[in-house]
Amino acid sequence: MDAAVAYAREHAAQFLDDLKTLLRIPSVSTLPEHKVDVQKAAEWVAADLRRMGMEHVEIIPAMGEGHPLVYADWLHAPGKPTVLCYAHFDVQPPDPLDEWVTPPFEPTERNQNIYARGAVDDKGQLVLQLKAFESLFKTNGGKLPLNVRVIYEGEEEVGGEQIAAFVRDHPDRLKADFAMISDTEMFAPELPTLCVGLRGMIYTELEVRGAKTDLHSGMYGGAAPNAFVALAHIIAELKDRNGKILIPGFYDDVQMPPAAELEAWKKLPFDEEEYREKEMGASKLVGEAGYSTLEQTWARPTLDVHGIVGGFTGAGAKTVIPAKATAKISMRLVPGMAPEKAFRQYRDYVRKIKPEGVTVDARLIHSGEPLVIGTDNDHVRAAMRALKTVWGKDTVFIRSGGSIPIVGDFEKYLKTPSVMMGFGLPDDGLHAPNEKFHIPNFHRGIESVIRFFEEASA
Amino acid sequence: MDAAVAYAREHAAQFLDDLKTLLRIPSVSTLPEHKVDVQKAAEWVAADLRRMGMEHVEIIPAMGEGHPLVYADWLHAPGKPTVLCYAHFDVQPPDPLDEWVTPPFEPTERNQNIYARGAVDDKGQLVLQLKAFESLFKTNGGKLPLNVRVIYEGEEEVGGEQIAAFVRDHPDRLKADFAMISDTEMFAPELPTLCVGLRGMIYTELEVRGAKTDLHSGMYGGAAPNAFVALAHIIAELKDRNGKILIPGFYDDVQMPPAAELEAWKKLPFDEEEYREKEMGASKLVGEAGYSTLEQTWARPTLDVHGIVGGFTGAGAKTVIPAKATAKISMRLVPGMAPEKAFRQYRDYVRKIKPEGVTVDARLIHSGEPLVIGTDNDHVRAAMRALKTVWGKDTVFIRSGGSIPIVGDFEKYLKTPSVMMGFGLPDDGLHAPNEKFHIPNFHRGIESVIRFFEEASA
Repeated sequence: MDAAVAYAREHAAQFLDDLKTLLRIPSVSTLPEHKVDVQKAAEWVAADLRRMGMEHVEIIPAMGEGHPLVYADWLHAPGKPTVLCYAHFDVQPPDPLDEWVTPPFEPTERNQNIYARGAVDDKGQLVLQLKAFESLFKTNGGKLPLNVRVIYEGEEEVGGEQIAAFVRDHPDRLKADFAMISDTEMFAPELPTLCVGLRGMIYTELEVRGAKTDLHSGMYGGAAPNAFVALAHIIAELKDRNGKILIPGFYDDVQMPPAAELEAWKKLPFDEEEYREKEMGASKLVGEAGYSTLEQTWARPTLDVHGIVGGFTGAGAKTVIPAKATAKISMRLVPGMAPEKAFRQYRDYVRKIKPEGVTVDARLIHSGEPLVIGTDNDHVRAAMRALKTVWGKDTVFIRSGGSIPIVGDFEKYLKTPSVMMGFGLPDDGLHAPNEKFHIPNFHRGIESVIRFFEEASA
Repeated sequence: MDAAVAYAREHAAQFLDDLKTLLRIPSVSTLPEHKVDVQKAAEWVAADLRRMGMEHVEIIPAMGEGHPLVYADWLHAPGKPTVLCYAHFDVQPPDPLDEWVTPPFEPTERNQNIYARGAVDDKGQLVLQLKAFESLFKTNGGKLPLNVRVIYEGEEEVGGEQIAAFVRDHPDRLKADFAMISDTEMFAPELPTLCVGLRGMIYTELEVRGAKTDLHSGMYGGAAPNAFVALAHIIAELKDRNGKILIPGFYDDVQMPPAAELEAWKKLPFDEEEYREKEMGASKLVGEAGYSTLEQTWARPTLDVHGIVGGFTGAGAKTVIPAKATAKISMRLVPGMAPEKAFRQYRDYVRKIKPEGVTVDARLIHSGEPLVIGTDNDHVRAAMRALKTVWGKDTVFIRSGGSIPIVGDFEKYLKTPSVMMGFGLPDDGLHAPNEKFHIPNFHRGIESVIRFFEEASA
């Protein structure tokens, strides 16, 4: 048996304990009160990299208000390729807290899963990289089979400004032949998967203002503009009841995947009823008419409202006419679409459709480019061989409806193509209460990375 | 000069100080954490009633979860009429807190106004009753010129269940010839006003549910129902862009005021531009097409959204597809309309128009009957004479767009007609930040009540 894999199996319990330690740090990057925890997570990761034998381990402090990066490398395998390893150590906020079965920052094992905020997104996948490095170092005389650079970030969930700037400003420090991104999922349990396409996004805040101040609906109701009613009219005209986005020109640049890829999706083991009922728990799938669910979530743009700030949201009744309502609205973009153009189209449209008596202000909070990546190359073939060895099955290529902006930045600024090899499962509940990571996937993920590095250096 | 009026003028500073003491108690009836403060306000009011010479002063504890009532009487004027005096000592929540110039529960004088939550609604108007009673007692050998019953409540802002039950169950304890309600405003500064019509209301919560749990918009966006988008479609179809409510049959029972009353409204000193710009600060009045502003706010039903609970409303970006959105939606009703019927029409309609993929649940939180009251009687004539003496002008009759459900209950269960004599001003900002009461109106309000009692007993 492969020595590194044997080491990983011997140390499985310790590896899981280490993951739990990291999961206990509530490194919520969107909430200022957790800034110190994001820093703590960075320090824990840096210490582990140092301990195993990585070099040039550095916590790169944030510029301005952001969160730090962690960099490390080991570059003593001349003639072998260099891999740039990416993951993130920040997590989404845990709310709504009352829906968690066990507390989000007390990792708990149940049914071969580990439950915690960040379990799958992305601490479990970051730690499986760390443990693959360690297993290789320990069984290889302190060496790795190829050159490795590590760049981990602490604000993936909040836009990733720091890493974007670092990639743009220091392409020399991240030079690599390919990148390995550990932040995606398998299409189905036991089905080795590489993700070859990502949606982009624009995340916006749309502020609607009516009167100068909140008004009493008894006194002014019937004459005063209501910011929430106006906002409802705008939202209803952004996306119709059939899931179609009504922004003029929004679909113009959409490039659908090639016919062969769309055909391959039809062969994936996808049960729409199970997806609807078990994963989503919805009475009906309500996507854009004329497209399959996989097309809707991987190949079509979409628009979602995440929440509306303003007015009275306490217990009981308050009869206020809210002066202001601010909706958090994001759009997922697909290849062909440009974030700047999509935002312009959206902003111009909401200005045009706004009801009388209110003003609107659309603000872009962050954005990411959509992306497709090639599969006809050595590193993807190496990944497929590795996955076949560990999982016993051929790799399927999927896309993701989510956004990992850094993959686009690696391509744009480093000219480095990515391998998105992830081990999440469709029901892991990332960003939701009771997020989990399947423990066998954690361990086989470690083995997959070990084998990938060995195959890539062969 | 009238002895009681002279006493009130001598004690003006003390009276204002007493009002400030009551304003410092944050008796927010909608917030459970302020329950104890509502109780404190009741105790302060009861103590003042006792001190001045009222009898049978009693804090009537709430049944269940509500807030107490305060009762008192003085019934030693045989042959004279009995007046039932009403006001409330609870207040609206002060949020948004950051828009207050001075803290809501630290009453502050600026420009002859006193700023505090509850200044005009309704503590200022409650205390002016107390001080009128006191001035009459002190200058009349410990007697009042007529029989007085007092019933003050502590949950007007949250539906007034306690007082409604008390009126229904103990009509004998509140027997009176007429009621004096101190919870309305003057149409314009220096213009004595009686309010002769009130809108009713239904306050509802509309809960929309999509998936069983919040979902990640990257993974599910495009296929999953979004509770906020669905809610926006519902709201947009409840009220159109021209201010028209689209619920079938909603306007069927509306009884417009008689032509003479509508004609008199046209002569009121109402400057629509000033109302829009100074009071409301809106770029446009957006009421129901075809009606004047006074008609829109006094004689037409309306619908407002007060806030939407759910989703992500923190700082920054969270890409969640909210499983649930709960809108606080109320409708103001006008004479002819029945709250139960209006709620049924609304509930049936939202069930019918709900988008696919979501469920809706419409809950009635509280309701109040719309109302018109007669003016051709002795007590209204007495009030007009009193107001003429104090303000030097003829009384105008107006309606109010707000709801004071107790006025309907007095009529229904006690057969007692009401005089709604209030001293608020149109720009007092009730329910809004920087609520105020004009200090001269506090003092002239006291004199008006003194004169009213003297006229009514003449």
